[in-house]
Amino acid sequence: MAKKRSVRDALRLPASGTLLDPDARPVGPGSKAAAARDLAATGERLAALQEALFAEGARSVLLVLQGMDTSGKGGTIKHVCGLVNPQGLRIASFKKPTPAERRHHFLWRVRRALPGPGLVGVFDRSHYEDVLVARVNSLVPRRVWAGRYAEINEFEAELTAAGTTLVKCFLHISAEEQAERLVARLKNPAKHWKYNPADLDARARWSDYQAAYADALTRCSTPDAPWYVVPADRKWYRNWAVGHLLLETLKDLDPQPPAATFDVKAELARLT
Amino acid sequence: MAKKRSVRDALRLPASGTLLDPDARPVGPGSKAAAARDLAATGERLAALQEALFAEGARSVLLVLQGMDTSGKGGTIKHVCGLVNPQGLRIASFKKPTPAERRHHFLWRVRRALPGPGLVGVFDRSHYEDVLVARVNSLVPRRVWAGRYAEINEFEAELTAAGTTLVKCFLHISAEEQAERLVARLKNPAKHWKYNPADLDARARWSDYQAAYADALTRCSTPDAPWYVVPADRKWYRNWAVGHLLLETLKDLDPQPPAATFDVKAELARLT
Repeated sequence: MAKKRSVRDALRLPASGTLLDPDARPVGPGSKAAAARDLAATGERLAALQEALFAEGARSVLLVLQGMDTSGKGGTIKHVCGLVNPQGLRIASFKKPTPAERRHHFLWRVRRALPGPGLVGVFDRSHYEDVLVARVNSLVPRRVWAGRYAEINEFEAELTAAGTTLVKCFLHISAEEQAERLVARLKNPAKHWKYNPADLDARARWSDYQAAYADALTRCSTPDAPWYVVPADRKWYRNWAVGHLLLETLKDLDPQPPAATFDVKAELARLT
Repeated sequence: MAKKRSVRDALRLPASGTLLDPDARPVGPGSKAAAARDLAATGERLAALQEALFAEGARSVLLVLQGMDTSGKGGTIKHVCGLVNPQGLRIASFKKPTPAERRHHFLWRVRRALPGPGLVGVFDRSHYEDVLVARVNSLVPRRVWAGRYAEINEFEAELTAAGTTLVKCFLHISAEEQAERLVARLKNPAKHWKYNPADLDARARWSDYQAAYADALTRCSTPDAPWYVVPADRKWYRNWAVGHLLLETLKDLDPQPPAATFDVKAELARLT
């Protein structure tokens, strides 16, 4: 029997830089119901591996979520990261930098939010904003943002060397799907708090953002820290895919709880 | 029909300071199966209320978990806090203070770990360690720890005034149940990483710890920030109880997503 194609192989950005379509399904279940069943089982395996990573207490995983507004960064955290023990997660959201953050190097706030040993870090947006919105809105001169791709690659190589495995996911939605989701938000008063008129400004620069994403993904996809393109027009496929990218990553790490450093029999004797 | 007794009323430390038994069940389901069914439904209500608290973005809840080793602080986080969106949680574990932490006031590290507006904070151990282990092991002179009860009450009054509702839970287990859980840990190599021979040193001072807990609970149970005694010899009852303490607290807060500050129709027109 042929070896099943891994989700990482199917979704990894190819050398050509060509992106999968937002509604592609190159691997995985064919229906929402099948994906939901699979995700529940995946959750149990993820939770067990995360507990082993925590017990081992040596290495870490960093899930980076990027994507246009409504692409489902928050939904992925809720539905995928919500499957594991929250104590083993370190979630950081990178919003518009504060004045204090702007006075520092762009990686300063990112370094402060890295997961410690044993943890799964989750970045809701990330240092990539500094080559996305910063570029599209000319927040810094071209020579500054243009130099950041190399800085990011160096930074990520340093993280990898220190024992952090990066899982970088571009949640790829179409402009049409975004419009539908924004309209749905506007039509539901309970979701108004999630809506910001500035979202439409970013939407108005759609092709500039797509170009900025294409460059960021291509220039910063390295063998140790590749980008995965997650088709995100279907929420259930997005969740399934990110769950499996994490699962495959954790299985490869094969974390092992450390052996006892005490005399088990002697401790049992103290107790009984 | 008589109003059902709230879980908070049933578990709140009485003025007398008398603790419930570790296997008491003064309120709630009578069986593990009934509790499991209930907890799943509770999880959905908790998740919805937490989302509203997050959307409102003004107030916060702080769940403080204290208890002897193996009392289930970690298990409560996994099974109860694991029911809600991890993005709305801020979990902090207070281990033995680092040298840097020891150079500061005992509340320094606690203040740095408080939940921001909209979040549910969870303390796995807390500032109460500074009147528990610090007292039992004479880590500081008596006059120092004795003064901390008043400091804690002032600190918590300040938090309450700033919009944080505290839910302080003493996970109360018996010495016999602790022995069983420690033996189970020792007999399972996969759980050895959770075992520390120093746990037995604390166990050897069981009655000193119970006295220190009794004082901490009595002196720091205030109308706005009462202590709840959660019988914890049964894990399912402990999870059920903490879930409902949180649920009742969030229901009382009745968080409301803020109204739109933009013109909904105009935004819809921009999109369609």
